[in-house]
Amino acid sequence: MRVVITGASGFVGHGLAKFLCSHPDALGKPVSKLVLADLTPRDADQGLQGCESGEWHGGDLTDAAYLDSLLREPVDCFFHLASVPGSAAERKPELGWSVNLSGSMALMERLARQGREGGRPPRVVFASSIAVYGVLGPGVVNEDCVPRPTISYGAHKLMTEILLADLSRRGEIDARCLRLPGIVARPVSASGHGSAFMSLLFHKAVAREGYVCPVSLDATAWWMSLTTCVANLVWAARLDPATMPSSRLWQLPVLHASVGDIVATLADHLDPESISGFRFVPDVAVESLFGQFPVLSAPGAMAAGFISDPDPSALVTQVLKGLPSPR
Amino acid sequence: MRVVITGASGFVGHGLAKFLCSHPDALGKPVSKLVLADLTPRDADQGLQGCESGEWHGGDLTDAAYLDSLLREPVDCFFHLASVPGSAAERKPELGWSVNLSGSMALMERLARQGREGGRPPRVVFASSIAVYGVLGPGVVNEDCVPRPTISYGAHKLMTEILLADLSRRGEIDARCLRLPGIVARPVSASGHGSAFMSLLFHKAVAREGYVCPVSLDATAWWMSLTTCVANLVWAARLDPATMPSSRLWQLPVLHASVGDIVATLADHLDPESISGFRFVPDVAVESLFGQFPVLSAPGAMAAGFISDPDPSALVTQVLKGLPSPR
Repeated sequence: MRVVITGASGFVGHGLAKFLCSHPDALGKPVSKLVLADLTPRDADQGLQGCESGEWHGGDLTDAAYLDSLLREPVDCFFHLASVPGSAAERKPELGWSVNLSGSMALMERLARQGREGGRPPRVVFASSIAVYGVLGPGVVNEDCVPRPTISYGAHKLMTEILLADLSRRGEIDARCLRLPGIVARPVSASGHGSAFMSLLFHKAVAREGYVCPVSLDATAWWMSLTTCVANLVWAARLDPATMPSSRLWQLPVLHASVGDIVATLADHLDPESISGFRFVPDVAVESLFGQFPVLSAPGAMAAGFISDPDPSALVTQVLKGLPSPR
Repeated sequence: MRVVITGASGFVGHGLAKFLCSHPDALGKPVSKLVLADLTPRDADQGLQGCESGEWHGGDLTDAAYLDSLLREPVDCFFHLASVPGSAAERKPELGWSVNLSGSMALMERLARQGREGGRPPRVVFASSIAVYGVLGPGVVNEDCVPRPTISYGAHKLMTEILLADLSRRGEIDARCLRLPGIVARPVSASGHGSAFMSLLFHKAVAREGYVCPVSLDATAWWMSLTTCVANLVWAARLDPATMPSSRLWQLPVLHASVGDIVATLADHLDPESISGFRFVPDVAVESLFGQFPVLSAPGAMAAGFISDPDPSALVTQVLKGLPSPR
């Protein structure tokens, strides 16, 4: 199988790349070539050492010539994870438009050509986001909730979902869209996500540093460890199209937990001092967009085999495994 | 006010143009210039004779130079009605993509520039469509129904709605999106709509011609006369942004009636012979996409002042007024 990952230098993309290097049969058939696409390739890449199928291919997805070079050979499975994160896209709307909207559209149109021209329609796993929902009310969210995005990032993800469903209906690609919750613990530097606080709690606790958190202890969010996220992306690629809804879309099941739950679990797993320098000073905008997530019911995604981290302790265990040891 | 109508040669666009010519204050302030944009202008245009503000400006909306010429002067109100209809877009997917998706996006981006560059954000009235819903179940549809388009035309309309809500949130345009039902009676020639049978019933009855209708007498659809549609478009342009939902979207209230209801009403208003040559031979695809519309509840749109044709008799009266007299 020829596999491409966009955003392969990113937190989720690199996690997926490492997993596919160490589990080359995870997609059902052996990965013969794993093309790692990113604007800024990780050239001296320890995580992928010894992965003979892996090959970096750096470039800008908004550049048609780069797309052509990336897709010169037929693709079996395409993971589209590259994006300009939400708050970065709000600050630079033209960049957000060109990458998250027109760039994604051009990419999907280019991928569809493979199916239109008689090749096998490429499987496309698209990382959508819970940012499509905008501000949710207090009621339980389920898979029939009408999304009303309140940032351009969410609007562009939603538009891409609709496009992928339509191209799949026409048989030109074979898409699987996943709405991802907050994946933890992203590197501190790779911010641009309004939900960065979710990851910073972990980093600051491990480093035993003080932290002024922009949401309250009561703030509730939808959490997922990188390990669980990667497992879901791989699972999405393996699904049989005959079993899929025509929307080609799943809201992943999530761990619904408060910041207080996570902080207390960190104190248990590390020690009470690890979080003693934390203060909670809610920012109204951040709390309303990222700290008021209600209960989520995702029976469709669970029946399809997607998973969540079962409880805060399991999440924290999984996340701490991926972080450097405390001093 | 400088007003632009795209698709001004089309059935709805031309109806709107005629109305604004004869009611130059209908938008609240006098229309000083009415720019009629279409790929194929109606040059020798009887309907617009004597309309001094009207000015045809022919060209292709997918051509950036044409957009620039259309928007050289600031626009107060922009009615975007141009599109490649549903079944035509299925037959020519590249044309559908370029007009209904990438063309609309480029147009909206170009309009947003006016707001971004310090001008007043233009009011944009966008003709979306009930094609966004795809195949509806038997339950009542309301304004919180999740759309699942089953044709590219519907997918592209839905994507444009989302884009317009986001550009409005950012204050770059001031959009009002209306989901239009089947507007009757479209000219016979201007087909490309899968729902053409809705209009053909009227034309064939008036002409006393036989007609093999591709849906059953029990088929239910959502109907609206051109007069009512134009009134709703004008009303949308007049709404106060402070009263609008952030989605900037309304499902118009509709007349929910069966083909049998409409045919019987035509026989009443004309004479029984007018429909004596009709036969009903359902095509499974047409019946399922266009002949199984359930009851619609649109309290939000009604509270905002949008209207429907109240009953089949009112609809038929209104439609017959707009058609040439029977032989």
